[in-house]
Amino acid sequence: MPELRQNMATKEWVIIATERAKRPEDFTKGAEPKKPLPDFVETCPFCPGNEGKTPPEISRIPGGPKGWKVRVIPNKFSALSAEGPRIMKFDGVNRSMTGVGVHEVIIETPSHNRNVGLLTDDEVRDLFRTYLDRYMVVHQDPRVELVIVFRNHGASAGTSLEHPHSQVIGVPLVPTHIRSRMEEAMRFFDDVGECVFCKMMSDEMKAKERLVLESEHFVSFVPYAALSPFHTWVVPRRHMAKFDQASNTELMDLALHVRTVLRKFYVGLNDPDLNFIIRSVPKHMENTPFFHWYVSVVPRLTKAAGFELGTGIHINVALPEDSARFLREVKV
Amino acid sequence: MPELRQNMATKEWVIIATERAKRPEDFTKGAEPKKPLPDFVETCPFCPGNEGKTPPEISRIPGGPKGWKVRVIPNKFSALSAEGPRIMKFDGVNRSMTGVGVHEVIIETPSHNRNVGLLTDDEVRDLFRTYLDRYMVVHQDPRVELVIVFRNHGASAGTSLEHPHSQVIGVPLVPTHIRSRMEEAMRFFDDVGECVFCKMMSDEMKAKERLVLESEHFVSFVPYAALSPFHTWVVPRRHMAKFDQASNTELMDLALHVRTVLRKFYVGLNDPDLNFIIRSVPKHMENTPFFHWYVSVVPRLTKAAGFELGTGIHINVALPEDSARFLREVKV
Repeated sequence: MPELRQNMATKEWVIIATERAKRPEDFTKGAEPKKPLPDFVETCPFCPGNEGKTPPEISRIPGGPKGWKVRVIPNKFSALSAEGPRIMKFDGVNRSMTGVGVHEVIIETPSHNRNVGLLTDDEVRDLFRTYLDRYMVVHQDPRVELVIVFRNHGASAGTSLEHPHSQVIGVPLVPTHIRSRMEEAMRFFDDVGECVFCKMMSDEMKAKERLVLESEHFVSFVPYAALSPFHTWVVPRRHMAKFDQASNTELMDLALHVRTVLRKFYVGLNDPDLNFIIRSVPKHMENTPFFHWYVSVVPRLTKAAGFELGTGIHINVALPEDSARFLREVKV
Repeated sequence: MPELRQNMATKEWVIIATERAKRPEDFTKGAEPKKPLPDFVETCPFCPGNEGKTPPEISRIPGGPKGWKVRVIPNKFSALSAEGPRIMKFDGVNRSMTGVGVHEVIIETPSHNRNVGLLTDDEVRDLFRTYLDRYMVVHQDPRVELVIVFRNHGASAGTSLEHPHSQVIGVPLVPTHIRSRMEEAMRFFDDVGECVFCKMMSDEMKAKERLVLESEHFVSFVPYAALSPFHTWVVPRRHMAKFDQASNTELMDLALHVRTVLRKFYVGLNDPDLNFIIRSVPKHMENTPFFHWYVSVVPRLTKAAGFELGTGIHINVALPEDSARFLREVKV
């Protein structure tokens, strides 16, 4: 019989659809091997030699044979305007705000074809140092209320540019989606007396069946109510609400940890399209005992349809325990 | 400058991304014309002659040269089990419920290649009569708390079966997504003293710039804070919380109204992949003065990426006023 499961942190329900269940191997079966990309593409604005084709650089990690290892630039097609004040307007039932904020692109490597899962230790540490650096800098914009660091990999995950890049967005308001997660976490804290993420993590470490990877400072698992096949959370062992509360040691462990998880996806699932997102608190909430930052990895192996749009309930065609075992066993 | 807009009924924010803005024509430009489908496919389980390949029929509208006009069957790959009791379980931080409920498929027509937008008056009325009939019957299952009628059209909208079909699902709980919409609508009612949908509709009828279609009993418009290009709501003029409160006259008007809207999509946007959903109240809330059932039409012309997953804010690359004008002007 199918099972409905609820994630106690987000309160989202998912149907674990055993009648349609696929084994982990089924997700790669019959998939065309992806066309290998070249290391350099002359027309790619993010490839070395084309630095002049991007908007003026914000920062870089210099070095290497190309002169830089990581570059940060403003998004040429920014979703938000860098200039202008934050003004909210009411016009009858219509509420709007000036679309101001920050939208940056992090070019992860000079190489056109490097997957995050295949970066060297040094490369992935540089990348995560850049994530933290931009996360902190973007917070300083007084108009920004929430900063999201994320990565889209592949067309199904919403990217059209092949060259490896991540994005940082600072939005000028706290969206309902985030407020409602904060409220649910707060309610759990009030009811149960501890952080729901800390509780989930310690339960997962005891149960073991949904664990993917453990390192000194982080634990990865497929959540009990994973919304989709191989959906994975990477959670810091120490309670911290805000991403920049991580120590340098923790950040370096995170870099290698996420790299290993993504390498498992790359090797075991044939380089699937995926998103990953660093989920942290809105501004001014860094001391909350109830919320816990984490990295969510969302492979895009299935599509949301009318049922998901209509109910907000997801249908997961893989048993979270099977997804976790599969990822755990992928040798990297 | 981009603009953030909030839908006052759902409280969802969207970035109207003027920097990336596309004109309505851009969404069809360069699109391959879709391969025309045959009227009959021998191996299709929903085509006439293959009635024995589906699970036993629940109901049909008899008649026509094939012996039936519409068939209702249980979903062979049901997301929920038809049998068994509704039992909720707590296991520490893990909450689950038996995945019981109803999942039906409505085969809309014997013809393999008929688009809802191209149905005759009689055909589309039969379809909407079936929607209402199943909506009412599924509600009678004592385990069901919410019924959703929806349609997935095309691969990007999550369907793999070509033959025209809709689905009805009865879920055994009220998901957070729905509860939060109900709460927002209730709060608006408490604050402003009227139904937020009635208010939006009357404002749109005055403003006119986002109207798509008006008929005797329904009004279609692209919401002020439309989440995606051409996102359209079809709202009954009369305040009703629950779909089955529609009179027969209203239902027949709805059928023709939705058919016309979908024909505009078919003609003007080259038969885009889309979902439509009848959004109505959970069981036992039919008398609420604050919620209003409606049909949401969601073309799948763009993809949600890490930003949408991370913030819940959507990015709409079309101005709702442009989308509406375009749809208004498509001759059908």
